[in-house]
Amino acid sequence: MSGFGLDHLPYGVFSYLGDAPRVGVRFGDAVLDLAAATGRPELATSSLNAFLALGPEVWSETRAQARRLLEDGTQTIPLADVVLHLPVEVADYVDFYASEHHATNVGRIFRPDGDALLPNWKHLPVGYHGRAGTVVPSGTPVVRPSGQRNGGTFGASTRLDIEAELGFVVGVGSRLGTPVPYDSFADHVFGIVGLNDWSARDIQAWEYVPLGPFLGKSFATSISHWVTPLEALDVAWVDLPGQDPEPLAYLGPGATRGLDIEVEIEVGGEVVSRPSYRDMYWSPAQMLAHLTVNGASLRTGDLYGSGTISGPAEDQRGSLLEIGWGDESAFLSDGDEVVLRYSAPGTGGGRITLGEVVGRIEPARE
Amino acid sequence: MSGFGLDHLPYGVFSYLGDAPRVGVRFGDAVLDLAAATGRPELATSSLNAFLALGPEVWSETRAQARRLLEDGTQTIPLADVVLHLPVEVADYVDFYASEHHATNVGRIFRPDGDALLPNWKHLPVGYHGRAGTVVPSGTPVVRPSGQRNGGTFGASTRLDIEAELGFVVGVGSRLGTPVPYDSFADHVFGIVGLNDWSARDIQAWEYVPLGPFLGKSFATSISHWVTPLEALDVAWVDLPGQDPEPLAYLGPGATRGLDIEVEIEVGGEVVSRPSYRDMYWSPAQMLAHLTVNGASLRTGDLYGSGTISGPAEDQRGSLLEIGWGDESAFLSDGDEVVLRYSAPGTGGGRITLGEVVGRIEPARE
Repeated sequence: MSGFGLDHLPYGVFSYLGDAPRVGVRFGDAVLDLAAATGRPELATSSLNAFLALGPEVWSETRAQARRLLEDGTQTIPLADVVLHLPVEVADYVDFYASEHHATNVGRIFRPDGDALLPNWKHLPVGYHGRAGTVVPSGTPVVRPSGQRNGGTFGASTRLDIEAELGFVVGVGSRLGTPVPYDSFADHVFGIVGLNDWSARDIQAWEYVPLGPFLGKSFATSISHWVTPLEALDVAWVDLPGQDPEPLAYLGPGATRGLDIEVEIEVGGEVVSRPSYRDMYWSPAQMLAHLTVNGASLRTGDLYGSGTISGPAEDQRGSLLEIGWGDESAFLSDGDEVVLRYSAPGTGGGRITLGEVVGRIEPARE
Repeated sequence: MSGFGLDHLPYGVFSYLGDAPRVGVRFGDAVLDLAAATGRPELATSSLNAFLALGPEVWSETRAQARRLLEDGTQTIPLADVVLHLPVEVADYVDFYASEHHATNVGRIFRPDGDALLPNWKHLPVGYHGRAGTVVPSGTPVVRPSGQRNGGTFGASTRLDIEAELGFVVGVGSRLGTPVPYDSFADHVFGIVGLNDWSARDIQAWEYVPLGPFLGKSFATSISHWVTPLEALDVAWVDLPGQDPEPLAYLGPGATRGLDIEVEIEVGGEVVSRPSYRDMYWSPAQMLAHLTVNGASLRTGDLYGSGTISGPAEDQRGSLLEIGWGDESAFLSDGDEVVLRYSAPGTGGGRITLGEVVGRIEPARE
């Protein structure tokens, strides 16, 4: 498959012939067994965390080593023969709300007579903590959740939705009480994953005041099997559209670099939208600075999501709530398979294909 | 110290003379080195998690074993000679809002002209996810957080507050997609800790719409060093005041048993309030059932807080926001030490003293 050449080399965790899970690198339609090829113990584990904790120099050396091994013709294992696992043991999971187009669309749908954006939205990247324990790898079936909706009636959600996002994986932690400045982004963040923040809109609407989304989101969050290191995205950085008012100093006026990542959303075999990460308002570095400005520490394995990626056009919306815009039939049916695909410019001149995120809806359990 | 007799025996993690942290049991003003006394490997680790995962039968046998060892005169280590650590590696941290008196007080303060309780409040235990990585053990200094407040200005919080809570520690996890019914509470929950959910009210007020509290809470949550097993609380269960309307079936009409736990809040050397957990609206079993009704899985080390414990009387309020009721000078000053103390009826006829939660406010860092 194209998009997984030597300029990409994303990391994942795989097992083969019933062996213990270990760290591998994807190359084409195959996996390099990096644990076996290097003999390094931090790669012979069931998550990337031990490797991620070692920091940017080791990340860079390891990437060069993987590339050399592949150039030297080291044998790989066909992708079809391995089992892929959750790549990261997630420490804390935070989800932001960083697309102005998404926040505006949602505001217009839910508050047609009010201001589309709430007063704080352009001052800080709004975010909240999600459930780390229900972050699952691509391919995990998603059981339609039940719960309280519509004024307190019980039942299976009838407004099951997706949110197409990017996820940022923290490698190097930080000390409690010490904020991480926006220009330290690359000292802490290892790479990115595709992310689908499954959302039950009816459960969420009833529960979310005043403490925010809870059960409407906590039943599953899917991420890609493959983590693309920031080094593979060197030529993908672009200026985001701009921020007005200028953000406070800790949010780094000038820290508004985003990624030129195209997203494709397929539902039930049909592409329904093509948002672009270029159109986001808040940048990844700003989200990290905000997350820690109060002194909150980072840990290896922390994951933060961008929030739904929506662009200005109708065919660039990142959730079915927006795509359907009031049409209840737009939400997910049992059996629907959702595929999120992502691509970015690679250093080799073409585009690299980030890890996809797949999930099929199973009926609610009785 | 009284309250730590043979009818209590809470668990914690300690180190002694620079040795590796391990599991111990508190007895009086001393610690029984349970790892050494039993030779069990799951107790020779730096958190209770491996032990907690073993489930109720092992919990019960271990408690009986600790009691026998102490009755047989096994040597203990003076509490003054050990270093105490965070007892549990926290997986996911959820905080509820289960006191009607607290929610009503907060509603009256923030919405003097509206209904004190929001429409969903009596239908479900409102909750949200907090930051697991900043759960710290009693005694950890709390640095005054900085951030955006008051319409987007930057600075140190001037409305730093406490929330006196109980925390429930999950031992046995559950499968994704399978709710945990309210009557399985004791199959999953191992025991309780004291919990102070430090809150920066000014940061929280600006950030919390529409996704809930984030940086106003995520800088620190303190828990007691000692985890009191449910078995020590056998005679502490009482009926909560009652629920109207009757909750939905999954919330267990009849699952409204609470704990007769008295709380004492000391700030700057002065006792400012004495709430009781008897006055809560939602029960611990109901919170657990709600948390998982959408199929969200539990993991060993999950922690959920009750929310602020406030009673009906003025001297039973669990936060300074309520205690001061509009008086800004009620919030915490640098140097203030807060101590939360808890007690419950013990099986020996007297009262047991749960682990206290101590924290001193350090000035904001520049």
